[in-house]
Amino acid sequence: METIIGLVAGALTSFGFVPQIVKGLKTKKMEDVSYYMPVILAVGMSLWLVYGLLRRDIAIIAANIFGTACNIVIVAMKRMYERNRDIKNYI
Amino acid sequence: METIIGLVAGALTSFGFVPQIVKGLKTKKMEDVSYYMPVILAVGMSLWLVYGLLRRDIAIIAANIFGTACNIVIVAMKRMYERNRDIKNYI
Repeated sequence: METIIGLVAGALTSFGFVPQIVKGLKTKKMEDVSYYMPVILAVGMSLWLVYGLLRRDIAIIAANIFGTACNIVIVAMKRMYERNRDIKNYI
Repeated sequence: METIIGLVAGALTSFGFVPQIVKGLKTKKMEDVSYYMPVILAVGMSLWLVYGLLRRDIAIIAANIFGTACNIVIVAMKRMYERNRDIKNYI
């Protein structure tokens, strides 16, 4: 029962970042998204991953592999869109 | 050791949402922030809270109380700013 709740919770807190990625891909804009949010979350979630490995907790491990990856993608997208905008403004 | 890693991880994944709240308060805009992200994360983090309570895991409990609250605040801010914009456009 615990593990089921943990796996559902983990699925939500990792897939929760997907709509942000999809929205960014559609609008090619992430101006209002804080840069620090995904950076801090990526570091935090990779620490959760270490914690899950130490406690051999499959729910925590699974959730945080995907969540860390999503947040790295969000940081990369934000950097890319901001650079593209700067290049446009320069031209 | 595990608990320390868990508490640091928890501090990061809860305080990670604060820069988004601060940015929103400064710019009064959250257009590029996906609506579904904080909604799904708030539900997911409250399930993590249940999981933490069931496993009596203080790191998980602490992290997710604050994280759930932050995500509820982000949803509320986004709704408020969007409504204010709609009213302005209507006037």
